[in-house]
Amino acid sequence: MSKLEDIVSLCKRRGFIFPGSDVYGGMAGTWDFGPLGVTLKKKIMDAWWEYFVESREDVYGIDAAIIMNPRTWIASGHTATFADPLVECKECKSRFRADKIADGINESVTTEEFLATHTKCPVCGKENWGPIRKFNMMFSTHVGAVLPEDTADNPELAEKNIAYLRPETAQGIFTNYKNVIDTIYPNLPFGLAQQGKAFRNEISPRDFILRDRECSQMEIEYFVAPDTWEENFEKMRSLQHDFLENIIGLDSKNIHELEVPKEDRAFYSKRTIDFMFDYPNGEEELMGLAYRTDFDLKNIERESGKSMEYRDKQTGETFVPHVIEPSIGVERLFLAVISTAYTEDEINGEKRIVLKLPENLAPYRFCVSPLLKNKPELVRKAQEVYDKLRKKYINVTWDDSGNIGKRYRKQDEIGTPKCIVIDFDTLEDDTVTIRDRDTTEQIRVNIADL
Amino acid sequence: MSKLEDIVSLCKRRGFIFPGSDVYGGMAGTWDFGPLGVTLKKKIMDAWWEYFVESREDVYGIDAAIIMNPRTWIASGHTATFADPLVECKECKSRFRADKIADGINESVTTEEFLATHTKCPVCGKENWGPIRKFNMMFSTHVGAVLPEDTADNPELAEKNIAYLRPETAQGIFTNYKNVIDTIYPNLPFGLAQQGKAFRNEISPRDFILRDRECSQMEIEYFVAPDTWEENFEKMRSLQHDFLENIIGLDSKNIHELEVPKEDRAFYSKRTIDFMFDYPNGEEELMGLAYRTDFDLKNIERESGKSMEYRDKQTGETFVPHVIEPSIGVERLFLAVISTAYTEDEINGEKRIVLKLPENLAPYRFCVSPLLKNKPELVRKAQEVYDKLRKKYINVTWDDSGNIGKRYRKQDEIGTPKCIVIDFDTLEDDTVTIRDRDTTEQIRVNIADL
Repeated sequence: MSKLEDIVSLCKRRGFIFPGSDVYGGMAGTWDFGPLGVTLKKKIMDAWWEYFVESREDVYGIDAAIIMNPRTWIASGHTATFADPLVECKECKSRFRADKIADGINESVTTEEFLATHTKCPVCGKENWGPIRKFNMMFSTHVGAVLPEDTADNPELAEKNIAYLRPETAQGIFTNYKNVIDTIYPNLPFGLAQQGKAFRNEISPRDFILRDRECSQMEIEYFVAPDTWEENFEKMRSLQHDFLENIIGLDSKNIHELEVPKEDRAFYSKRTIDFMFDYPNGEEELMGLAYRTDFDLKNIERESGKSMEYRDKQTGETFVPHVIEPSIGVERLFLAVISTAYTEDEINGEKRIVLKLPENLAPYRFCVSPLLKNKPELVRKAQEVYDKLRKKYINVTWDDSGNIGKRYRKQDEIGTPKCIVIDFDTLEDDTVTIRDRDTTEQIRVNIADL
Repeated sequence: MSKLEDIVSLCKRRGFIFPGSDVYGGMAGTWDFGPLGVTLKKKIMDAWWEYFVESREDVYGIDAAIIMNPRTWIASGHTATFADPLVECKECKSRFRADKIADGINESVTTEEFLATHTKCPVCGKENWGPIRKFNMMFSTHVGAVLPEDTADNPELAEKNIAYLRPETAQGIFTNYKNVIDTIYPNLPFGLAQQGKAFRNEISPRDFILRDRECSQMEIEYFVAPDTWEENFEKMRSLQHDFLENIIGLDSKNIHELEVPKEDRAFYSKRTIDFMFDYPNGEEELMGLAYRTDFDLKNIERESGKSMEYRDKQTGETFVPHVIEPSIGVERLFLAVISTAYTEDEINGEKRIVLKLPENLAPYRFCVSPLLKNKPELVRKAQEVYDKLRKKYINVTWDDSGNIGKRYRKQDEIGTPKCIVIDFDTLEDDTVTIRDRDTTEQIRVNIADL
């Protein structure tokens, strides 16, 4: 098994992440977070919110709806251009992303270019292709009283009521910019931050939670005076490193800045840095930092006819702010955390899997155990210690299953930093064993000093 | 203006809640939370999570995908029955929910019954109706490589790839039940809790955030041994009251338990209590507590062919657990909090609007202000106090806009419990004025005692 497969297996086995709709054979590209996964995900998201919103005076939160007015996506360009090249095998009717099954072509491939690659159908092996068609990755739906039969019978009504699941959270911020400046009057530079779901109808979702159809994003649109973009870009850049390395505990060795060259950047961006991460299957984008100029606000001005100008309180000057955007996918960060923590080592000649999660992210900080389950005096004493610790730290778990070795193995796999064991000595001298997850070293500590 | 209109107005004016996609003229039935609304919403949701999940040993979290395998909704009955009666005016083509425009009929109205009411079209005033049709409230979409033209040209492909936005979060829990019992082996009774979005394609959304198309739910499915349902129902019932009254601060006088009679309950439920709340526009459901028996797990068994049996570790007995479900809408709770807090009174003959939010929910706990903005020594001193407080409490705001009266008015409207003002006396004796939101009383306190 590859390391990624090992991680997928651990995530399922220990209740971090299950395949979406697993009981019905799944739903491709969706994943459900189980009890431990929810806790870890929430800790990651709360750490981001605390770092970038609560502890800052210049960043405010936004929580916009997932279903937005479709004009949003006309203005942003998604309706016209957020598309992958789809090709259908005329023999077996299978459909593929053309740029994923042929070498040396990209998303803007034409039918002629694709046919020239002489690619065979990955399903039936024949070479009989239809034309390349543009497949828009936005999920569409109908809002309001549109019946299924209307989509055929009454295309006008269907068209009028079409809406999309947002393919990115960013536009939920831009569309609220004007209401924010009109109500809380923030000084520039200021940021609007959002955590929320975004949806992309990937033709072939893959790589576990790296390329899923439904993901959670954490984004800030940081509004700045146009001539200050460079300093603010640098400020955001160093904040991202500080957060990823010092709050989330990623190793800076695994993070590589990729200065995106002009020809690969979105045409409106004057600078983009992709933060690449060494995932188990290779380097992949973890987050992006983009200077989006005034592209989005200007689009909204054009589509809505409303002014997006900001009026400087000191100078009285008016202008459309420019935007620096740090954007990170929660699932991508989750996988970076898990794959950093995932370690296999050997203890007394036996292979061990251990999740070396930072203390601030581990689902449980302590596990409390009676050495033997069938000794009421040990269980009673352990319960006392457990209750005491739970009052102080909320994330404490109890484990009296199997033997002590099995319990350590389980707690290692879910990343619990310390196991506290109550044994017969405890009854004599009120000391307990504390066993360290990473070193497996055990020390005796007085209960009063816990 | 009605009290509800006053609240909608305050919510927009102060950045709690904006109409969704406002800049494009809106998107009916969607609402966006602004800076203060996000903070209040997050505090409500975190309080629920802490009370019902983190501080309990018998409840675990789940976070399932919004797009689920469509068999989920066949099993749950939503595909067949989650529908409203839709009627179209043949004159002007307007569409309505039949039971909302005619008196004395309900959702199961027939065409004949509706026509007998002789209702006139609310838009054109004519009486020329088409037949009643069932309008399913689930938003549908297509997953994977389905092009818009396929829905007409290739109905089989379209049908195969249809999926729905979940109309409730509960099924995201039930579908994960088996994976949870197979991985973390919880003892009965245990609960699985989820916070997340659900979508309902209301024909006519209304009443602000009470009946929106996209809402956040907080639900627990509490799995119990069948013969213990009554005691667990009572346990959950009293926990709900404790949470609503002692953590969220709702007045018990405004909460009314409605024992749902047999004929109005879902057919599988043996007991349901609706917790009704006195909203500004009248009594409306705030939350529900339902005994769902083994209805959902049995449905999943039937549809998936997999056993949902639980094996008791002590007795070895196997059975399908029964379920108690407390379910609350975040927006409904949000509006209950805001409308409880919303108060108009008179201070020195002037009308005042004040949001008397509990301290644990107020977006800001303190506001720090220099008496005058143009006195650097006051601003400097105020900044010191502000920095000191922010280190201790994260939710502290700064306000130096307008005059002190205007600032109080603003802080009252956003529910800040205490305003701290630095004036010339502060420079002499290191004391500040603390002004109380609810009483408007002011006291002098030493900075060291803050």
